[in-house]
Amino acid sequence: MNTTAPAASPSPRSVLARNKLMRTAERLYAERGFANVSVRQISEAAGQRNNSAVQYHFHGRDELIKAILSRYTDVIEERRIAMVEALGTERTVSLEEHFTCLIMPGVEYHIEAPGPTWGARFFAQALVEPALRAYVIQEHLNTPSHRILDTYGAVRRKDVDPGLLQRHNAMVRQLSVHAFAELEHDLANGRIDRSETEARWRQLGQDLITALCGLSAALLGRS
Amino acid sequence: MNTTAPAASPSPRSVLARNKLMRTAERLYAERGFANVSVRQISEAAGQRNNSAVQYHFHGRDELIKAILSRYTDVIEERRIAMVEALGTERTVSLEEHFTCLIMPGVEYHIEAPGPTWGARFFAQALVEPALRAYVIQEHLNTPSHRILDTYGAVRRKDVDPGLLQRHNAMVRQLSVHAFAELEHDLANGRIDRSETEARWRQLGQDLITALCGLSAALLGRS
Repeated sequence: MNTTAPAASPSPRSVLARNKLMRTAERLYAERGFANVSVRQISEAAGQRNNSAVQYHFHGRDELIKAILSRYTDVIEERRIAMVEALGTERTVSLEEHFTCLIMPGVEYHIEAPGPTWGARFFAQALVEPALRAYVIQEHLNTPSHRILDTYGAVRRKDVDPGLLQRHNAMVRQLSVHAFAELEHDLANGRIDRSETEARWRQLGQDLITALCGLSAALLGRS
Repeated sequence: MNTTAPAASPSPRSVLARNKLMRTAERLYAERGFANVSVRQISEAAGQRNNSAVQYHFHGRDELIKAILSRYTDVIEERRIAMVEALGTERTVSLEEHFTCLIMPGVEYHIEAPGPTWGARFFAQALVEPALRAYVIQEHLNTPSHRILDTYGAVRRKDVDPGLLQRHNAMVRQLSVHAFAELEHDLANGRIDRSETEARWRQLGQDLITALCGLSAALLGRS
C-alpha cells in the first residue's frame, strides 16, 4: 500500500513514534470525528514533545490518515486472501461463499483484537470525507481479494450488465462499511455490553451475509 | 423539529441571514467535509460582515448543523407522510410499498430541486460524526412517517424478534443514507453527466427498493 515512509530506512525510534502516532490518531478520530481533532492534539496525546511530529513523520494529516487506512486494510486483506484462495477457482462460488469471504475477515479481525477497536469508525469517516472518498474506494476497496472475488465469485457468474454490477457493488460497500462502524460505535459507547462483543460481531457477520445474499439475488436477478 | 430560533419573532433580515448561512454551510460542508470548513469561512462565504454571524444566529456550529438537518428532513418527511397516508391502514402493506414510501420521497426531492443538492452528503456526514450520530438517528430517522411504517408496514406484519427488527432497520438506514450521498457526490464531481440527473435518481430509487425488498425478505424471513 502507499504509506508514506522516509526514503532511508527509518530508525527503530522513528518506527515507534510513527506507530504511536497512528494508533493515537485512529482512536481520537474514531471517537471525536475528523472535524474535532487537530494534528497538534494527536502529537500531544501520543506523547511527542514536538508538536509538529505529525508533519515530521507523515508530511501532514492526509498522509497520516492514508497510513492508518493501509494498516487496517492490510490486516483484513491478508485474512481475506487466504479465505478466497482456499475456495479455489475450479467451481462456481455461491453467493453465500462470496459474501462470507467479503465479511468474515473483518468480523474476525474485530473479535481477535486484544482490546477496543477504532478502525471501522475511522474507515467509515474516511469514506464519507469528500476529499478521501475516491482514494478510499480505489486503494482500499479494490484490493486483490476483491478483484479475485469479482472475477470468480457468484456475483460475476450471472450475465450481469456492468453498470448494474457497479451499482450493486457500491451498495454492498455502503452497507458493510457503515454496519461495521455502527457496531463498533455502539460497543465503544456502552450501548452494547462489552461481554457481548464476540457474539455481536458474529451476529453482525451472519446478518450481513444473509442480507447481502438477499440484496444481491434481488438486484442481479432482475437483469 | 428542534431548530434553534431566537425566542422573540425574528426580523425579516434575521430570517434572510439565517437562511443564507444555512444554505452556505450545507454546501461547504457537503463539498469539503465537516473537518475542512470553519464557522468563520461559512460567515464569509455567506456574505456576512460579522465573522461571528454563526455564533449570533445559531449559538455555534452544532445548532447550525441541527437546523440544516431539520430543514432537509422536514421537506422529505412532508412528502413521505402524504404517501404513507395514501396507503391507509386497512390492509397489509407490501414490502415494495413499504420501501417505496421510505425511498421515493427523497428521490423526488432530489429530482425536483432547482439546482445541485448538498443535503444527502451533509446528512451522511452528520450520521457518521461521533457526536451527532445518536441525535441524527433519534431526531431525523425516527420521524412520524417512519413510526407509521413501522407500525403498519409489511416489515412489522411478520412475527419478528424486536432485536432482529432493530438490526434490520439499522441496515436499511445505513444503505439508503449512504447510497443517496454517493450518487449526489458523483453528480457533483462530474463522474455522472448532469443531463442524466433525473434518470440516475430514478434508477437509484428503483435499485434501492429492489435491493431492500431482497435484503428484508432474506433477513426477516429467517426468524
